[in-house]
Amino acid sequence: MSRMNGARAVLKTLSSGGIDVCFSNPGTSEMHLVAGMVATAEMRNVLCLFEGVATGAADGYGRMARKPASTLLHLGPGLGNGLANLHNARRAGTPLVNIVGDHATYHGPFDAPLNSDIEAMARTVSKWVRRTEQVADAGRDTAEAIAAARTAVGHLPGGVATLVLPSDVCWSEGGLAAPIPAVASPAVDGHEVERIAKILLGSERCLLLVGGDNMRRSGLTAASRIAEATGADLLAEKSPARHERGAGIPPVDRLPYPRDPAAARLAGARHIILAGARTPVAFFAYPGKPSTLIPDGCEVHDLGAAPEALGYLAELVAARTSPVTADPRRPGMPSGALTAEKAAAVLGALLPEAAVVVDEAITSDQWLPEATAGAPVHDWLNITGGSIGMGMPVATGAAVACPGRPVISLEADGSAMYTLQALWTQAREQLDVTTVIFNNGSYAILDGEMQRVGAFSGAEVDRSRSFIDIPGLDFVSLANGMGVPAGRARTAEELASQLRRALAEPGPHLIDAVVPPVTS
Amino acid sequence: MSRMNGARAVLKTLSSGGIDVCFSNPGTSEMHLVAGMVATAEMRNVLCLFEGVATGAADGYGRMARKPASTLLHLGPGLGNGLANLHNARRAGTPLVNIVGDHATYHGPFDAPLNSDIEAMARTVSKWVRRTEQVADAGRDTAEAIAAARTAVGHLPGGVATLVLPSDVCWSEGGLAAPIPAVASPAVDGHEVERIAKILLGSERCLLLVGGDNMRRSGLTAASRIAEATGADLLAEKSPARHERGAGIPPVDRLPYPRDPAAARLAGARHIILAGARTPVAFFAYPGKPSTLIPDGCEVHDLGAAPEALGYLAELVAARTSPVTADPRRPGMPSGALTAEKAAAVLGALLPEAAVVVDEAITSDQWLPEATAGAPVHDWLNITGGSIGMGMPVATGAAVACPGRPVISLEADGSAMYTLQALWTQAREQLDVTTVIFNNGSYAILDGEMQRVGAFSGAEVDRSRSFIDIPGLDFVSLANGMGVPAGRARTAEELASQLRRALAEPGPHLIDAVVPPVTS
Repeated sequence: MSRMNGARAVLKTLSSGGIDVCFSNPGTSEMHLVAGMVATAEMRNVLCLFEGVATGAADGYGRMARKPASTLLHLGPGLGNGLANLHNARRAGTPLVNIVGDHATYHGPFDAPLNSDIEAMARTVSKWVRRTEQVADAGRDTAEAIAAARTAVGHLPGGVATLVLPSDVCWSEGGLAAPIPAVASPAVDGHEVERIAKILLGSERCLLLVGGDNMRRSGLTAASRIAEATGADLLAEKSPARHERGAGIPPVDRLPYPRDPAAARLAGARHIILAGARTPVAFFAYPGKPSTLIPDGCEVHDLGAAPEALGYLAELVAARTSPVTADPRRPGMPSGALTAEKAAAVLGALLPEAAVVVDEAITSDQWLPEATAGAPVHDWLNITGGSIGMGMPVATGAAVACPGRPVISLEADGSAMYTLQALWTQAREQLDVTTVIFNNGSYAILDGEMQRVGAFSGAEVDRSRSFIDIPGLDFVSLANGMGVPAGRARTAEELASQLRRALAEPGPHLIDAVVPPVTS
Repeated sequence: MSRMNGARAVLKTLSSGGIDVCFSNPGTSEMHLVAGMVATAEMRNVLCLFEGVATGAADGYGRMARKPASTLLHLGPGLGNGLANLHNARRAGTPLVNIVGDHATYHGPFDAPLNSDIEAMARTVSKWVRRTEQVADAGRDTAEAIAAARTAVGHLPGGVATLVLPSDVCWSEGGLAAPIPAVASPAVDGHEVERIAKILLGSERCLLLVGGDNMRRSGLTAASRIAEATGADLLAEKSPARHERGAGIPPVDRLPYPRDPAAARLAGARHIILAGARTPVAFFAYPGKPSTLIPDGCEVHDLGAAPEALGYLAELVAARTSPVTADPRRPGMPSGALTAEKAAAVLGALLPEAAVVVDEAITSDQWLPEATAGAPVHDWLNITGGSIGMGMPVATGAAVACPGRPVISLEADGSAMYTLQALWTQAREQLDVTTVIFNNGSYAILDGEMQRVGAFSGAEVDRSRSFIDIPGLDFVSLANGMGVPAGRARTAEELASQLRRALAEPGPHLIDAVVPPVTS
């Protein structure tokens, strides 16, 4: 058994667990992990200028690679900066090994300036948190973190495991690499699936709500067959972490974001059958409106966490039924002054084969699903936890995970400004990411929300602009400032020509697409 | 008693507590607070594009205004983005009322996508946390938050009070504005001061360590008199939140950042007397080196939290002694290719009267104290908690607090990229902030830390550049992209001419000062 320090034991265990990418923003307390990564050269270091980029990139990587990346963050404040995108990863069920360096174990009681309660912070976004206190445990704790990150819980395929590593644990000798514990896959509950099959074959109105891992070709194919065979309504969760779609794949509408249209979409269902989705709830509470979206008298049934359950259900109720799939079709190329609707058409017309689309276009995204429904097969990644600032980091990580695939990052101006530093990593790594900013000069979503919460009189709506308008952002300058070539599009033609060029050239590009605001 | 909703009760109480500035980044759950701010127009809304800007600005505001600003953040992820700068505010003891909107009380159990444990997250950076559960308590809880923010604890003059406001508490009728509880000032422990006076008048070697509120003219004057009269060594804490200095004010060295020089500076002291400072500790732990900086056999004495204690001590031991004050002097204007040292001289030569300097220049800052020691009186604000990304937000808040004073924000390229969005708020509010980026293309501090932790062999140091070099950042483009006029300086002459112009013109400016790296 070779002698090694704790940092080497951590890295060796990560390597044996198949983790070979680290999205990092380290500091002094992580220097022995950095030294180990430099010495062993088994881990690809993707440096990020802000921790929210690192955690969001690890989320995007995990969604596409279907295995964890690691992060490397510096103490409590570093973790703090990464929390918002860890929140999204938590809701996505993304496997992710979140490594946070800490002061040496004996340094804690001195409460040095950077000291804080890292574990309390980590628990708010993690399914598993551990602080390693002894160098002998460094490998074992890493192995358990990897297993925890890959273990399904409820409807989620994995999650965020946070490992807090004090600096003396990393620098002390006595580390041992550890084997990764076996990860149990969720089992199909055959009796429950058979019970649900009977409901579907009965006469009461059913709605099949798909989500999670069932948002890929095989799950959607099974779901479509079930819907065709039984007449059940087919719908997807609001924000799937990863949705495979396009020509040849069964199409599915997603639950709307605003509460009332969402409730209307579910109205009339006597049974809602969850296939990888959670029980749907209103995204926000509104005065006088219930939080639940489940119609009165409707029963909710759950196929459980095993993706195979949906296939078994299809065998039971739709053995001889074919799925309905999307036909290949592209919208016509629009012209003239750009709008969000025309931008969607341009994207639909040009979306390349095997694209990975990351969608944080917020209010500008409403025409995108239809415009891209018949495009070549692609993956569509959404904001799972509602925490904005995920798009550009997730696109960065997806590009690291899928070097052969074009990544298209659809951003809103407001959300882009949370984690814009992702562009620097895209430039440094020469990632093939094309960012389109739907730049409407405002937090347009708040326009709609102000109306929905009913808080404003007429005159106050005007005065509220100080909270909504965000003028003066020039994303061409901002992208150039981080080494990303960029252009501005004010017409559909300009967007099309710039998008064509960006897709044809390697490396990152950005298009500042100037559009009028859309109220959601 | 007028009828009002919870949001109005919160705002009326904030107003009666003297809080009239809110650094905001709200969302749906905060819309009734927004509506109330719009309707009553008693609160200045300073919109920030990222929550770390809002919390850092509130820190800068509180340090300069010596009263709290409020923030307005959106749920757990919004708080998460603000945590790093709240950590600095916590260490600074800045009075700050941190308002976080939450889902409606009845919406929580549905665990909607944005739901998370806000209070657990808040406790990691707050001295006081409360979630208001009933509209009738909204005013009272706000009043108690204000009092908590203003109450001294230990050596800190105030702190972060986090108030979590569910949306239904804000929109429900039945709010009551509440009076602000009286805040007790810390009392001088006369016997303890007299005991310490005897030690100072004895023959053993004493070191007076000043910090906190004693870093202003009156405290430093008392400290200087004591040192002159008794022969005590005079030193300041490493990172005072606000340090008043310049010609006519007693000069004081600050404890060095690296562990060994810090320990050397304290060596030989038989008594360390704390005057608003904490017991000094090593900033980080290093293999084989103790965390404490206190020499063996040295006793630590504490004058307590009351700033008046130092004045009383001066009366006891230095009644007839005058302070030593800094003479007016400016460095000569340098010329030629820019270095961090020459940039410091340019700043010292041009620093205007009553400037507020925010220092996050990291490794480039080592020549600044000497170069500005004899400049006109100014305030110098430091990184109190070691969490980088504080500089530009703190400068933003300081400018809001001090509209008549020029604010100079000294930044490093690495730290600037954490919260660069502050520039947009500076442009929108037309704040008189001049940002100088010491752009050395690297996380230069890690160069020094790698050596100090002893983790790298020769060849590995080269390979470690993937963690250290951050090339390709063009801060002129980045600033222009947010509406801030900017220029690049490669020589001392260029820096001087651009700095003169920036100081002469109103509104924000940025200078991208290209310098070679300095190893700390």
